[in-house]
Amino acid sequence: MIRATKDNEYYELTSPTSMPKASGFLWNEKMMIHMNCRGYAVAQFMQPEPAKYSHAPNLEAKTFMQPEQPYYAHHPGRFVYIKDEINGEIFSAPYEPVRKQADSYTFAVGKHDIRWNVVSDDISIEMSLRLPKEDAMELWQVKVKNLSSHKRKLSIYPYFTVGYMSWMNQSGTYVEDLQGIVCSSVTPYQKYQDYAKIKNYSDKTYLLADRKPASWEVNHEHFEGEGGLHAPSALQLDALEGGDARYETPVAVLQYRLELEAGEEQEYRFIFGPAHDEEEIELIRQRYFIKQNTEGLDGFALAEQEYAAYVAEGQGNIQIQTPDDGLNNFVNHWLPRQMYYHGKTNRLTTDPQTRNYLQDNMGMSYIRPQIAREAFLTALAQQHASGAMPDGIILHPDAELKYINQVPHTDHCIWLPVCMSTYLDETNDYSILEEQVAFADSEEKASVLEHMNLAMRWLIQDRDHRGLNYINQGDWCDPMNMVGYKGKGVSGWLTIATAYAFKVWADISEQAGHPAAAQQFREEADRTNAIANEYLWDGEWYARGITDDNVVFGISKDQEGRIFINPQGWALMSGAADEEKREKLIRAVEEQLETPYGVEKLAPSFTAMREDVGRVTQKHPGSAENGAVYNHAAAFYIYALYLVGEKENAYRLLRKMIPGPDADDILQRGQLPVFIPNYYRGAYRQFPRTAGRSSHLFNTGTVPWVYRCLIDGLFGLQGHAEGLLVRPQLPADWNEASVTRLFRGAELHVKMQRDASVRETEVYVNGQLIEGDIIKDVRAELKYEVLVKLPL
Amino acid sequence: MIRATKDNEYYELTSPTSMPKASGFLWNEKMMIHMNCRGYAVAQFMQPEPAKYSHAPNLEAKTFMQPEQPYYAHHPGRFVYIKDEINGEIFSAPYEPVRKQADSYTFAVGKHDIRWNVVSDDISIEMSLRLPKEDAMELWQVKVKNLSSHKRKLSIYPYFTVGYMSWMNQSGTYVEDLQGIVCSSVTPYQKYQDYAKIKNYSDKTYLLADRKPASWEVNHEHFEGEGGLHAPSALQLDALEGGDARYETPVAVLQYRLELEAGEEQEYRFIFGPAHDEEEIELIRQRYFIKQNTEGLDGFALAEQEYAAYVAEGQGNIQIQTPDDGLNNFVNHWLPRQMYYHGKTNRLTTDPQTRNYLQDNMGMSYIRPQIAREAFLTALAQQHASGAMPDGIILHPDAELKYINQVPHTDHCIWLPVCMSTYLDETNDYSILEEQVAFADSEEKASVLEHMNLAMRWLIQDRDHRGLNYINQGDWCDPMNMVGYKGKGVSGWLTIATAYAFKVWADISEQAGHPAAAQQFREEADRTNAIANEYLWDGEWYARGITDDNVVFGISKDQEGRIFINPQGWALMSGAADEEKREKLIRAVEEQLETPYGVEKLAPSFTAMREDVGRVTQKHPGSAENGAVYNHAAAFYIYALYLVGEKENAYRLLRKMIPGPDADDILQRGQLPVFIPNYYRGAYRQFPRTAGRSSHLFNTGTVPWVYRCLIDGLFGLQGHAEGLLVRPQLPADWNEASVTRLFRGAELHVKMQRDASVRETEVYVNGQLIEGDIIKDVRAELKYEVLVKLPL
Repeated sequence: MIRATKDNEYYELTSPTSMPKASGFLWNEKMMIHMNCRGYAVAQFMQPEPAKYSHAPNLEAKTFMQPEQPYYAHHPGRFVYIKDEINGEIFSAPYEPVRKQADSYTFAVGKHDIRWNVVSDDISIEMSLRLPKEDAMELWQVKVKNLSSHKRKLSIYPYFTVGYMSWMNQSGTYVEDLQGIVCSSVTPYQKYQDYAKIKNYSDKTYLLADRKPASWEVNHEHFEGEGGLHAPSALQLDALEGGDARYETPVAVLQYRLELEAGEEQEYRFIFGPAHDEEEIELIRQRYFIKQNTEGLDGFALAEQEYAAYVAEGQGNIQIQTPDDGLNNFVNHWLPRQMYYHGKTNRLTTDPQTRNYLQDNMGMSYIRPQIAREAFLTALAQQHASGAMPDGIILHPDAELKYINQVPHTDHCIWLPVCMSTYLDETNDYSILEEQVAFADSEEKASVLEHMNLAMRWLIQDRDHRGLNYINQGDWCDPMNMVGYKGKGVSGWLTIATAYAFKVWADISEQAGHPAAAQQFREEADRTNAIANEYLWDGEWYARGITDDNVVFGISKDQEGRIFINPQGWALMSGAADEEKREKLIRAVEEQLETPYGVEKLAPSFTAMREDVGRVTQKHPGSAENGAVYNHAAAFYIYALYLVGEKENAYRLLRKMIPGPDADDILQRGQLPVFIPNYYRGAYRQFPRTAGRSSHLFNTGTVPWVYRCLIDGLFGLQGHAEGLLVRPQLPADWNEASVTRLFRGAELHVKMQRDASVRETEVYVNGQLIEGDIIKDVRAELKYEVLVKLPL
Repeated sequence: MIRATKDNEYYELTSPTSMPKASGFLWNEKMMIHMNCRGYAVAQFMQPEPAKYSHAPNLEAKTFMQPEQPYYAHHPGRFVYIKDEINGEIFSAPYEPVRKQADSYTFAVGKHDIRWNVVSDDISIEMSLRLPKEDAMELWQVKVKNLSSHKRKLSIYPYFTVGYMSWMNQSGTYVEDLQGIVCSSVTPYQKYQDYAKIKNYSDKTYLLADRKPASWEVNHEHFEGEGGLHAPSALQLDALEGGDARYETPVAVLQYRLELEAGEEQEYRFIFGPAHDEEEIELIRQRYFIKQNTEGLDGFALAEQEYAAYVAEGQGNIQIQTPDDGLNNFVNHWLPRQMYYHGKTNRLTTDPQTRNYLQDNMGMSYIRPQIAREAFLTALAQQHASGAMPDGIILHPDAELKYINQVPHTDHCIWLPVCMSTYLDETNDYSILEEQVAFADSEEKASVLEHMNLAMRWLIQDRDHRGLNYINQGDWCDPMNMVGYKGKGVSGWLTIATAYAFKVWADISEQAGHPAAAQQFREEADRTNAIANEYLWDGEWYARGITDDNVVFGISKDQEGRIFINPQGWALMSGAADEEKREKLIRAVEEQLETPYGVEKLAPSFTAMREDVGRVTQKHPGSAENGAVYNHAAAFYIYALYLVGEKENAYRLLRKMIPGPDADDILQRGQLPVFIPNYYRGAYRQFPRTAGRSSHLFNTGTVPWVYRCLIDGLFGLQGHAEGLLVRPQLPADWNEASVTRLFRGAELHVKMQRDASVRETEVYVNGQLIEGDIIKDVRAELKYEVLVKLPL
């Protein structure tokens, strides 16, 4: 029912009903498309804010990408109706809107394309979607094959939804010269000042065809008629009626008539996307359908290779071979791809949250370090001279801080050293610390080192008399907006996180030649850890925070929200927890937060508002992020476990994050193992029915941390100022593993194996046993054969 | 196919497919529901901003009420599925979602209820909707009758959509104690400050039943399954599965099993609406279903009479009997009802546009003058000390100016005298002018008279060197946002409208004992008319305006937007047009703007943006307001025609505003003649296919002006300081008409008839010929028999 193809390039699903929300996604720097197995689509392109060209049937809210996207009959989608001209029977591919059970069905999610193969009534329909490398458009291929032993007369109708484009104006027409449908709209606006922007928008939606259709329809109501989408009235007609849509909901439907001999196949190609005007559409047509290169390939054909190459650029720096096939597949193919998506698109926002921006670019340290470098400089240039970081990073001159970025959070500074350390590990490029960067509120430049020091000092001063960090209206992961809005409430997690940030920054400072500062930050980390232990340790785990009114919460006496994952993991990372506390808190997490689908963010889930804590409690149990297995938080906990050498625990939890390998687990989550969603439904002990379900939202800071878990933890092949640190933490039941590690331009073929003859890990480089666990003098362009012998 | 019932209480439609958008609406002061013939619904309640309790399947934009509401399968609605338990066949009432052609179908839109009767397979389903007088809730009655000659075993499933309530939280459960379904949600918010508001919201949606159901479903996905809404999977089961919705889209479906003998009927009652908590729902249940009065009637039953009485309060002050049945029906039943809706609800906004607020309350002068009086005082208390009126009137302490009310328009002052004159005509209550009212920016009070003078003086000073009124970013009816945003552009219409406002105000001033001021404003009106004739007369009609860059537009050399209706009609009203100009412009309107569906706002419709004019040109032809028969503007033109005695022209155009009497006309408009929509599609000469279609939006300033056309024009029974002015302008082919006119507490039975024996109109009161045309000394509580003899 669900399978990875042999070459691991695709995950396949063989039924559209077993996992109705199963999906794949494609992107380039201009757009993103989330394609559901049944044919529904969510696509956005940047102009510069995210915009749509295939709309809902009503006036949708403009908002950030939602988890658990609801689907319904008129949801935007891409479909092909097939009519047998002899008996009038219809079906549709991929599955919606007719929902006819196919004789065979495959939904194949690939790294650079998405395909379906649907066979019904001896007709095979292959649909595939690709994107070009740079333009905002969808490239569709539809192949129709007669599998029967006799001639067939068919009509096929690509049906691409355009939807309710605008209340200000919308229309649709077929344009003969373009051989396609052009639907026009005007983005609604109230203030004349906005006209200057909207007049340049790509407010048209087009469907171009490489073949002249027999007929067409652009008016949704005329198409659907009284038949409904499962049996559109227009399909009862010999030919579609043409005409136009005038402020009526437009649609893009073409009809092709074909006669296929037994075994014969026909192929059609379509381009669907947004455009500013018909001139632009004509250029697109020329470029993709008309002009050919010397080999006779047109732009449409060339785009396939270009886009595959584009995606391949993001393949990460490890290729693994372990006893765990599911892990191999996910890590070698899908994980770096998801990480690359984040780094390339910044989640299709123009004002990413500062913490997201830094972490997404931390991931780019493994793929395109130069991009990560630029991102750190971009973020620091928006730092305040006080050291405070803004809630979001503005990436476009017209952008502004929106939504949650208008709510003051206090955690942004800690991500600077935490994320930069990965960049430095990978590149050893300490020159970044000398870059001169201005401030948001001052043109005077300072070095990155000074910027970072300011950020750390801001964290030191933004504390109460006890030395606990203020939370204001939120920190990370649980937007608890009422803990500290009066200016007194503090965050347990953030206090502990600052200790970890100081430690990381101390190490960097040391390495950069500032031992005094390093010493100072190490002492600050120790002081902070001591404070955490004094005020936050609850006996078996750490509290989440203390409110404005001095109520400690996230503790054993709480009925709901008794334990939060973040303070626990970070206390392992910061060193706050000594061995006894470590054991206790790990046990508490296992007992109270661990589920078959991973570690929950908090438990028990809140079922009612707790007004001294705030918004987090309104994300109700089993519903959204509140009691969910929030993978980003879970990844930190796993990372923390690796940091303290809890490799078995760490691997067990890591493995829960990736759906599979067994089909039941995949089915419960409702998602193919091609990305890690931002959450799986939690509240496992309260609402087991829905626990484990995927959010289907692939925007998540989880992925670079999973990568760090692999690099720094599981495979222990972390960069270091002196070279490559080799400290694998393979689970005990793995006898061997191989990793091809790209590192500072070199390629290391690392074979790890248990060896009864060694008591401690031994590392051989090109056959030579090295001293210690750092492979030094790694040179770019060279290849290394590394053997790691691990004790049993 | 479309018919009015004998008693004119209902308009009936006998097919759901002939006019798929046909609808009716009900309201009370807390809510409004727009009910489509096929079962779709748009309902809003005030908390205090308009909110929904039956949502779309996706995250909808919050915006003002849209014209031409698009419908689609999962659009919010109220339906009943009926399953024959013997053969498993299903159909649904009223029509959606199954869309089975019924054996008989009636959609009956009444003044205080909306009903359907659907017969299919010898089962009769009667559905009816009422509202209570005060609460925000829907009261539904469903009767099932076995019309066959044998016993039937059925299941019926009321299916009320709840939809995608919230991304922050949504859930649904059946609550045994309430005998109903409760769906809960949390309104999304970002800023903790908003929590104080949202925590008190009525964020729950409930469906209460007066009988215990056999089973229930609250999970939309479980209900619909793979069957689709036209054949939900859950209906294949013997019983609905129960369970819950946890962050899944909720729905409210109940199942009742019934066995009906031949001819037997069963009745079910349901309440559907928003609530804050379960306690409130329990109180509702007690009040409507449990407690009974001494006659054994529960609240549900009592609500019917109460609501009918509430609607009856708004019946207006004329009842007519003319040779035109369609007019009689509309004027006696539907027109005052629509006017009353506006006055009672202020279009369900908390910040109505100032011009709308004043005109809607002008209409209340005919129904509840005291409400009109208070509205004038409310509006004037928000006037600036400069005399300027704000763009919107704030009606709730939490309200703020939204959308178009943030765009500065310059016309608001003119509506003050124009609307107040009707109040004074009706009531003779000149004491309002002595009321002391503060200002928005000054607590110092001034009399209404002074406020009005300030408003007039503001209009006099807000002009350019030529004496033409600035338009800034808009005036009335065509939001031309770029004509004058640089501060230079002027409005032709507004200049002419100020002349009319000055004349009206001069008359009021005179009557109030301020002859010098009256003289001054009359002179100002003359001066303004002279200026209009100098700069705006284009040879055959008046220009619409002059841009910042001194481009005159709305003139003969323009290819698009060559003629606008507003300057023409108002020039008749202001007296700018002398007899020659009058004839010319009336001819121009007839030739260029008149269509079978009324007078267009402008022609030819713009097909592209004209950047020196602005937004109006983006409301594209045949699509929205741009080239439409915008009834509000058309009503002014008709009023103007009556003012200058063009009674045949006036009546012809007035009659086009009300759909019918012939079915073809009603069908093209797609609307039952129970309200006047804000527009009918125009661009008749450019896009005839869609011309005439109703916007289906019943929010419109048209209605009080149609009433004024009747009172001041057609029937000529206008109030006057000295009494009732009798100047009928019946069309030539009417030999007689009767009007019962309620006036200042008296009831006048006016019979108008052609009489060959008179050369001039003669008025007999209680049999006595009076001198002149004013019935003086009209006394409250008395009845008068009035005979008006009209020359042939």
